[in-house]
Amino acid sequence: MSPRRIFMFDGFDDAGFGTEYLRHKENVEKYLYQVVPSFEIGGQKQLGEAIRYSLEAGGKRIRPVLALATCDLLGGDTDLAMPFAAAIELIHTYSLIHDDMPCMDDDDYRRGKPTCHRVYGEDMALLAGDSALNLAFEIMLEESLKYVDDAGIASRGLTAQGVHCSVLKAMEYIARASGCRGMAGGQAIDLSGTITNIDELKNLHSHKTGSLISAAVVSAAILCECEGDEFLALERYSDLIGLAFQVKDDILDKSGDFGKMGKEPGRDERKEKLTFVSLLGLDGAEGFLSELVGMAVESIAVFGGGAVFLESMARYIASRSA
Amino acid sequence: MSPRRIFMFDGFDDAGFGTEYLRHKENVEKYLYQVVPSFEIGGQKQLGEAIRYSLEAGGKRIRPVLALATCDLLGGDTDLAMPFAAAIELIHTYSLIHDDMPCMDDDDYRRGKPTCHRVYGEDMALLAGDSALNLAFEIMLEESLKYVDDAGIASRGLTAQGVHCSVLKAMEYIARASGCRGMAGGQAIDLSGTITNIDELKNLHSHKTGSLISAAVVSAAILCECEGDEFLALERYSDLIGLAFQVKDDILDKSGDFGKMGKEPGRDERKEKLTFVSLLGLDGAEGFLSELVGMAVESIAVFGGGAVFLESMARYIASRSA
Repeated sequence: MSPRRIFMFDGFDDAGFGTEYLRHKENVEKYLYQVVPSFEIGGQKQLGEAIRYSLEAGGKRIRPVLALATCDLLGGDTDLAMPFAAAIELIHTYSLIHDDMPCMDDDDYRRGKPTCHRVYGEDMALLAGDSALNLAFEIMLEESLKYVDDAGIASRGLTAQGVHCSVLKAMEYIARASGCRGMAGGQAIDLSGTITNIDELKNLHSHKTGSLISAAVVSAAILCECEGDEFLALERYSDLIGLAFQVKDDILDKSGDFGKMGKEPGRDERKEKLTFVSLLGLDGAEGFLSELVGMAVESIAVFGGGAVFLESMARYIASRSA
Repeated sequence: MSPRRIFMFDGFDDAGFGTEYLRHKENVEKYLYQVVPSFEIGGQKQLGEAIRYSLEAGGKRIRPVLALATCDLLGGDTDLAMPFAAAIELIHTYSLIHDDMPCMDDDDYRRGKPTCHRVYGEDMALLAGDSALNLAFEIMLEESLKYVDDAGIASRGLTAQGVHCSVLKAMEYIARASGCRGMAGGQAIDLSGTITNIDELKNLHSHKTGSLISAAVVSAAILCECEGDEFLALERYSDLIGLAFQVKDDILDKSGDFGKMGKEPGRDERKEKLTFVSLLGLDGAEGFLSELVGMAVESIAVFGGGAVFLESMARYIASRSA
């Protein structure tokens, strides 16, 4: 095992899950590096390099893995889900590039590497973030249109009309999740610094972190034309793991270390931001996290034990060390 | 006539065109103010306010007017084209918010009002730009899906399948025009400061300014299912007026005044940027502009004189004083 694999599943002892996770992760990375070219326009290469720098800086790729796993669970076509999984990772990447900038969190390191603006300058980092968000939509649109043009879709039981419609609905869900009513809105709440209690903190994070994690699961479900109880179960599951993810982030910010996380812990505390740990204490936050994981596992009982990977994912989110 | 209307068509004596321009402009503004709500999430209002502040700061609305006029020319349905016209204006607005920021052009005024970051702070302006770009896709997606769900489309000679497909293709064109291979790529070339001659300058502006102006015309043509010679004519026309727009901008930067433009002239010169005026001289740039307008008018001769509004638009772009 490479050092990265050990890092990846450090503290989570489930070989089957780990193998499956890495399969999805490697597939989406391979796809991303293929569809995100090193754009060179008019002799200018820096913009493409800055996007790739941030994209290739690593990360757990939890969002695209969730999308691909949901697609597998529902028996969908990975070729259709892949551009959406990749687009969600690009949206996540854009948000990190902009959040790290001096006028936002002013962070020098991300995943153990200097942040985008430290390497390429603030102007290019601003543009790289903008372009990564834009590229997410370019990829969803271009790849979906290619997919429909591929004469093979009929043999997969799909029609152009059905795919066009699902694609529009999945993209709509993702767009809403990343904008004013989702991630960007959550970031605005965070900037406003008005959080005083746990309900407000939950609301903040359901937007800032939760909405894009949810969108990974739900957009895949839409593409697979999932409906009824199964759809509602996946929605609920995705909300719960989104919140669990943030609670764990707060715990790691309190008790993690730079070597594993690739960024400095204790930043929230120094900025006097309210967190689940500052509100509930470390033990209280750990308890809340366990509760969320239990509820997440239970929420997908409708699949009659078939959603093993997603169950493990909920546990992994709570046990990760980075 | 209100002072704004006089300002708008100052120097362009064509009452029929002016009336039509204002009709499109007022329609798209009414629509924009309706679909861009003052988002209030978790008690936080600033993000929505910052977007609306920049959107309502005015501007000529050339891009959406071009989209709506193209739709009219081709006998398309304005209800279908409107969200795309509005989205293009939102993309333009996002680019202005980010371009004005201290790490980019560091401008204090835009359209005679303090720039977004001067009013809302850099962090909120960054987020407002991000959200405006995102919102462009939200609006195209949500409004198109609503349009297709409207049982009335059959009476307009349209099918859900046809509309879904056109919508995806039009959105793809717009996304490409605003990203790395379009506007953002042009901005990156500009930042790289490597322009040394007129061909490089044309290439820069065909990306930075031209691509979104083109997208306004071409996306409307795609939505109207325009093909063949007419499609090629509109593509060529849109490229020519995009370039003409920038040449006129350079002329105004040299010879315009703050009162009319709402921003300081002479900025490019102080920044020692190459412009069409610095390369060709003021007379040379004026001559080049006339040539572009002539070619633009000629390019749409395929409509047999039916494209009167677009012809006047080419002339207006060259004669405007702001």
